[in-house]
Amino acid sequence: MKNAYKLLYPMRTYLIVSGRGSEVNVMAADWVTVVSFEPPMVGVAISPERYTHRLIEKYGEFVISVPDWDMLDDVWIAGTESGPEKIKKMRITFVQSKKIKVPSIKEAPANLECRVIDRQSYGDHTFFVGAIEECTFDSRAFTKGMPSHTASFVAHLSWNKFINFDGRIREV
Amino acid sequence: MKNAYKLLYPMRTYLIVSGRGSEVNVMAADWVTVVSFEPPMVGVAISPERYTHRLIEKYGEFVISVPDWDMLDDVWIAGTESGPEKIKKMRITFVQSKKIKVPSIKEAPANLECRVIDRQSYGDHTFFVGAIEECTFDSRAFTKGMPSHTASFVAHLSWNKFINFDGRIREV
Repeated sequence: MKNAYKLLYPMRTYLIVSGRGSEVNVMAADWVTVVSFEPPMVGVAISPERYTHRLIEKYGEFVISVPDWDMLDDVWIAGTESGPEKIKKMRITFVQSKKIKVPSIKEAPANLECRVIDRQSYGDHTFFVGAIEECTFDSRAFTKGMPSHTASFVAHLSWNKFINFDGRIREV
Repeated sequence: MKNAYKLLYPMRTYLIVSGRGSEVNVMAADWVTVVSFEPPMVGVAISPERYTHRLIEKYGEFVISVPDWDMLDDVWIAGTESGPEKIKKMRITFVQSKKIKVPSIKEAPANLECRVIDRQSYGDHTFFVGAIEECTFDSRAFTKGMPSHTASFVAHLSWNKFINFDGRIREV
């Protein structure tokens, strides 16, 4: 059953920003979901071995940044390298968030600012639940309250393989 | 912030099977994620208003069925209609699961059999966490331990719009 989780793939890939100043860090995470509609809350499962885990525990805040296809090299660096050194290799720009001190990523089509309201340990990961305090987004990527299919959202297929959506939509 | 969760879309859509016998039910759920690698665990956020919620509370088990593009009509029925009556409208076949009493769906490329190990209330939803006890899958959809991009996996774009993946893969 060890790899049964792969049956849920491809899953979307997001970036998790944590910390601040010289401690700021970015990791890639697929294990992200919504947990409440009202009030809006999201959850993310993070290994305690990650530097991001320590920073979320320390500051109680994180940003979920939504990368697009053009950011795939940065997603890869964020997902495979460890610690704050990798930030220097990434071609991203941190910008001040609106409600929390963890920065957002300028190049990302969307950033969700989250304040931790719960943490639970499940197996080898911690599930951090955050209330969405604020969000910013590019209106080209999200128009009329829904994701634009022309934006190249990224899904993770397997270890080093990523896939995007084709723009073919079916309305039911 | 009410609709900020839409910034995480498109998200994969899954079917959640619960109950047994005449009480068996199926709902569509986007808010599904992995929460632990070892032991393997998944979580799903479900509104307490759902019949599925009552059945998961009662039996402590659920199946995550992975629908493909051909099952989209069934996904729509499962997601928009309520109660067990809808089952009769769906073109799915229940088959016995291997380890739990909640049935799997024959037509689905994959079924993950889960036993509830925790429940948490977050806002207007309950987050059920399940240990993956067993899984079954179609080897055409999942080959060599990864999802085949030729299988038409389904993602939810907005209310009545669904999107699939295009098969263009980038290896980094």
